[in-house]
Amino acid sequence: MPDPTSPIALPPSSDEALAAAMKEAAARVEQALDTLLPRPEGPEGRLFEAMRYATLGGGKRLRAFLVMQTAALFKVNATCSARVAAAVEMIHAYSLVHDDLPAMDDDDLRRGKPSTHRAFDEATAILAGDALQTRAFEVLAEADTHSDPNARLELILALAHAAGGRGMVGGQMIDIDAEGKTLTEPEIIRLQALKTGRLIQFSAEAGAILGRAAPAQRTALAWYGRDLGAAFQIADDLLDALGTTEETGKTAGKDEAAGKATLVALLGPERARHQAEMLARQAISHLESFGTEAELLRALARFVVARRH
Amino acid sequence: MPDPTSPIALPPSSDEALAAAMKEAAARVEQALDTLLPRPEGPEGRLFEAMRYATLGGGKRLRAFLVMQTAALFKVNATCSARVAAAVEMIHAYSLVHDDLPAMDDDDLRRGKPSTHRAFDEATAILAGDALQTRAFEVLAEADTHSDPNARLELILALAHAAGGRGMVGGQMIDIDAEGKTLTEPEIIRLQALKTGRLIQFSAEAGAILGRAAPAQRTALAWYGRDLGAAFQIADDLLDALGTTEETGKTAGKDEAAGKATLVALLGPERARHQAEMLARQAISHLESFGTEAELLRALARFVVARRH
Repeated sequence: MPDPTSPIALPPSSDEALAAAMKEAAARVEQALDTLLPRPEGPEGRLFEAMRYATLGGGKRLRAFLVMQTAALFKVNATCSARVAAAVEMIHAYSLVHDDLPAMDDDDLRRGKPSTHRAFDEATAILAGDALQTRAFEVLAEADTHSDPNARLELILALAHAAGGRGMVGGQMIDIDAEGKTLTEPEIIRLQALKTGRLIQFSAEAGAILGRAAPAQRTALAWYGRDLGAAFQIADDLLDALGTTEETGKTAGKDEAAGKATLVALLGPERARHQAEMLARQAISHLESFGTEAELLRALARFVVARRH
Repeated sequence: MPDPTSPIALPPSSDEALAAAMKEAAARVEQALDTLLPRPEGPEGRLFEAMRYATLGGGKRLRAFLVMQTAALFKVNATCSARVAAAVEMIHAYSLVHDDLPAMDDDDLRRGKPSTHRAFDEATAILAGDALQTRAFEVLAEADTHSDPNARLELILALAHAAGGRGMVGGQMIDIDAEGKTLTEPEIIRLQALKTGRLIQFSAEAGAILGRAAPAQRTALAWYGRDLGAAFQIADDLLDALGTTEETGKTAGKDEAAGKATLVALLGPERARHQAEMLARQAISHLESFGTEAELLRALARFVVARRH
C-alpha cells in the first residue's frame, strides 16, 4: 500500500511531459547521428570532424521530435524513426553550415559556438555541408530505415522535394535576393514556407510515411506541420528581434541589421505574435482525428509560440 | 544495284563509331537534363537559371556515356538510362560548381565559359550546387527511372557512396588539404580514386544495376570503371600540365600553380602517360565476358588516354 503521507503523484502537465519527451527524442537522435556519421580517420578525417561538429550536440531537435512523435502515432519502431530523424537533422545542419558562410549570411555564431567555417575553414564547411546532404539520402535508402522499399523511396522523394530547389534551397535563394528589398506579406509567407516550413512539414509527415498511414492521416499531419512551421518561423523572428545573443545562442538582431524580410519587421511584434498564435491553434485543429495520442504534438504547437529561447 | 564506281562503304572504325555514340549519348542526356531541371520562374528563378547554366550544354559527358553504354549491354530502355545519366551529370556539375568557388580552387573558367559563381555570384553558386545534388537523388527515386523499387534504391545507395564523404567529397577534402604538401604515389592514387574515380566507377556500374545484371557482371563493369577513371585522371592532369587554356576550356597549368598533388608532377609526363596506358589496357581486360557488344567501351578506354582536349 502506498505511503499516505507521500505527495500525490499528479500526472505531469503537458508542458512537463513535452519537455521530457523532447529531451528523450533529442537523446535518441543524438545517438543515431553519432552512429550514422563517419568517424574521423584517414587524410579526409577533417571532413568527418566538421560533419560531426555541425550536427552533433546542438539545438532543440524540433524536426527530430516531430518525426519520432508522429511515427509513434502509428507504433513505428523507434530505431527506424530515429534514423529518419537523423537524416532530417543532417539536412537541417547542412543548410545552416552553408547559410552561415561569408558569401551567404556571414554568421560567426551558431548554437552558442563558432559556426563551422569559423571552427574549421570555408572549404571544409562547404564540403561538410555537401557530404551531410549525401549522407541524409543514403541513410533513408538503407534497408534498416524501413522494411518496405516503397516507404524508403517515398521518404527520399518527400525529403528531396522539401529540401531542394522547390523547397528549402529555393527559399534561401529568395531570402538572399530579398535583402534590402521590401517584400509584401504574401511574399514573406511564401519565402518562409519554403525556407523553413517545408522541412518542418516533411518531419511531421515522415511519421505517416513510416507508419504506412491512410492518405487522410498523412495530409492531416502535413497540414499540422505546415502551420506549425509558419508559427515557429514567426516566433524565431520575434526572438531574433527581441532576444539577446546570450538567450538565443545566435547573433541577435541580425535580421534587422541584414535588412531581412520578416513578418515581425512588416507587421510589428504584437501583430506578428498574434499571427503565430493563430497558426498554432490552426495546427492543433488538424490533429482532431488522432485523439489523446497527439497530446504532445498539441503541446508542441503551444510551446513553439510561447518559448523564450 | 550499287554503283561499282562509288567508294566502298567501310564499316566505321571504332574511333568514328565512338565519336558518334558519344555525340548521341550527349544529345540524349542534354535532352533529359533540360526536362528534369526546373525552368526559371518565380522569385527563386535565379537559382534555377544557375542550375541550368552549370549543367546544360557542356563537357564530353563521359559519365553519361558510360551509364548509357553499360545499360545498353543489358538492353535497358534508353529513357531510363538517360535519367540515371542525367542524375550523374547533376552530381558532377554540382561538384564542379563548388570546387570552382573562391574558398576552394578559385577558378574563373569552366568548359570555356565563366564558372557559375562568376556568371552569377557566390551565394547563388553554393545554392545551385546544393539543389543540383538534391535533384539528382530525387530523379533516381522517381518511378520513371526503373519499374523495380529495389533497383532505384540500389542506384541511390551506390551514387551516395560514390559521391559522399567516403567518395568524391572525401577526395576533394584530401585534395585541398594536400596543396603545397608532397604526397606519396599511393596517397595520390587514393586521392584521385575518391575524387574522380568513384563517380566514374558508379557510372559504369549503373548500367548493371539498371539491367539487374549478375553480380559478376556488375563487378566486371565496376572494375572497368575504376581503371578507366584512374587512366582518365592521369590524362586530365597531363592535359593540364601540357595543354593550353584554349585547347582545354579550363585554366591551364593551374594544378602546378596551386601545388596540386598529381602523378604527372610526381612521375613526370612520360611515366605518367605510360601508367595511364597500362590502366586503359587493364580496364579493357575486365570486359572480356561481354564480347563484341562492349567494343565501344574498349574504344572509350583507348580514347581517354589518347585525347588531346
